Parts: sequence; C-alpha cells; structure tokens
Amino acid sequence: MNKIITIGREFGSGGRELGKRLAEQLNIAYYDKEIMEEISNRTQLAKDYVHRIVEQKPNLYVPITVGRTFHASSSDYMIRQQTSVYAEQANVLREMAQRSDCVIVGRCADYILKDHNPLRIFVYADIESKIKRCREKAELEEHLSDKEMKKRIQKVDKNRSRYYTYYTGQKWGHHSNYDLCINTSSLPVKDFAEALADLIRGMEA
Amino acid sequence: MNKIITIGREFGSGGRELGKRLAEQLNIAYYDKEIMEEISNRTQLAKDYVHRIVEQKPNLYVPITVGRTFHASSSDYMIRQQTSVYAEQANVLREMAQRSDCVIVGRCADYILKDHNPLRIFVYADIESKIKRCREKAELEEHLSDKEMKKRIQKVDKNRSRYYTYYTGQKWGHHSNYDLCINTSSLPVKDFAEALADLIRGMEA
Repeated sequence: MNKIITIGREFGSGGRELGKRLAEQLNIAYYDKEIMEEISNRTQLAKDYVHRIVEQKPNLYVPITVGRTFHASSSDYMIRQQTSVYAEQANVLREMAQRSDCVIVGRCADYILKDHNPLRIFVYADIESKIKRCREKAELEEHLSDKEMKKRIQKVDKNRSRYYTYYTGQKWGHHSNYDLCINTSSLPVKDFAEALADLIRGMEA
Repeated sequence: MNKIITIGREFGSGGRELGKRLAEQLNIAYYDKEIMEEISNRTQLAKDYVHRIVEQKPNLYVPITVGRTFHASSSDYMIRQQTSVYAEQANVLREMAQRSDCVIVGRCADYILKDHNPLRIFVYADIESKIKRCREKAELEEHLSDKEMKKRIQKVDKNRSRYYTYYTGQKWGHHSNYDLCINTSSLPVKDFAEALADLIRGMEA
C-alpha cells in the first residue's frame, strides 16, 4: 500500500509549507490545489466556486450563477451539488492515493483515505504567529489591520471546522483524529519537516 | 534559561517512556515520581495520599486518616490541604526548572512553568493500544479483562483531565495548550524520541 501523509491545518499555520517540505524530503507527490482543479474539470463547475464549496459545509447560500452554466436557484439543488462535489473530491483523493506515495493537504483526506492507513498530521499555531505568517506570505490583503486579519483567519478556520465536522462527524483539530499535531509557533517548520522525514524513512526501513 | 520539556500523557500511552528516552538522549534530568516524594517530604503527608491528591481535583472525599498524622475530618479542611499540596507541587517544579535542563512528566508542569517557555508535549493513544501497553508493562492488575482495563484507564484519564482543568482553567489534551501532540498508536515511541531529540538539539544549536 502506498504511503499517504494527510495534513489538516489552521489557516496561516504553515501546514502547506510543512507538506511541501515533507514531500520534497521524501521525494513523493504533493497535492493541494491540484485536487480542486481536478474536481472543477470533472464537475464542470468554476474553480472559484469549487474552492468556496470545499471550504464550507453545505448551506443555503445561493449564488446567481455558479460558473460555467446558469442553474435554477434552489437550496435543495445547491445542497445536492455541494454534496456531489464532496463525492467527486473523495474519488479524486482515492485515485491519487492509489497512484503513488503522496502528501495531501486538507480536503478531509485523513477521513476519506482512512483505509489507506495514512499518517494524519494536524498543523496549528497561535493567532499572533498566524497573522505574522500571513503578512510574510501575503496570504491576505496587505492593507488589513491585525484585528481584521485575526477575524479573517478565524472565519476561514471556522469554515474548515464546520466542513470537516459535517462530512466526517469528527471534530476538526481534535488530537484523537490525528497521529501528530504540530504547533508551528514553537517548532520551526523547516527543521520539523526534516526530522519527521527522517522518522518516516526510518519507520519504513 | 534552562530547557524544560513537559509531558502530559494519557494513562498507558507511553508518555513516561517517551520522557525517559528524551531525557536519556538529551542527557538531562528526568522527574516523575520524584516530584511526589519531594511533596510528601515537605508536607509531611503520606506518599499514597499525595499521589491520590495530585491525580484528582479537590473534592469532598474524606479519608479517616491521611497518613502520618490524624486529622479532624472536615471537607473545608480537606480542600485547603489539597490546594496546599498543589501549591507545594508548584514550588517543587519551579525549583527543578531552576536547577537544570529537565523533562517533567505530568503535574500541570506545562502550565506552572509557562514562564520558562517549556516545550509542551502531550502523548496519547487509542484505547486498544493503551490496554496492550498496560498489559505489557503490567501497569494494571493482570487479571483484569479488557473491558475492566478500559474502564480503569478511562477513570484515570478522567481524573487527570479534571485535575488539570481545575488548576489551570485549560482543557487537558487540547492541542492549543501544547507544542506537540503525539499519538503513540501510530508512531513508535523509541524512534520518535530519537527524532525529537535530534530536532531539539538542532533548535538549540
């Protein structure tokens, strides 16, 4: 069975960086945005819309147009569409996991791929570190005040948490759902990725 | 400032083993049962009684005798005694942290020593792994069935959780209170201790 590493992460915590570095160190595939592109292709929905869906649990928010085609607005229809995007996402993840060893960021991969016995990592940080990282990486608009950034970060995390709980029935970030939870406020991502890659290589040997 | 590593742990998860191995690898002091012995000496209370106190939040349980001396039974008196044991424990921990680099297992050390900026680790495992470990290490009576062991383990963890929350106002095992949470069901303690020791040495260099 291929070695699968899944990474759940708070916004601005450096989860993506950890995933990339781990994939580089272990010389295995890395999937993040590729997943949404693939779903977008398969569902014929616009990428932005897919992105919004995979960060939010189904709700009654109904856009006038959802991208490539115009749809009749019905909350029931929307929920079915969101659920089918989730199902397509699960297919994409399973295919990626079948293909080769890989690191997958987000997308409930820890839950969807549990039969593959993945190494499930959760990455988090205190709010000050997340604001700092967002400024450094320009992940949010630069003009935002710290207070505004905090609000945005909390909103993204709240959506991730709701989405995860809706589809998995589990609590996002609760240690029992992961093999390793890493606070990047205290542990430097680069050094931790190297140590963890060594450990994983050792476990496989 | 000395390097302090604190370890919170679920019963039977291998937290003590991880702490010992880390201390050996880093060649630093390791404190576990020594803390209770020191408190017992200072408070003139029997070791067994101190042990019971430091695993439970103050309550109205009143033993007839508490060890070396006989005390008038009063719930108010008991609570004061339990609180003073906690205060003495805090003194002992601070002295240990002042003395040298060290690993400290349990005792709300992550919270009490927060000014020392400790590396705060939480160690946990699924219930099957904890039962297996308890059998291997003979940490509980051997004649217990799996069901009875599970009950005992859950009881110890419930007490640890209540005690921690009572004195710290924080949630025991919640990732935000730690720098690293390690699931020993998936990650072998020996290998992880080595990788982590390497990482810590690297961070100090």
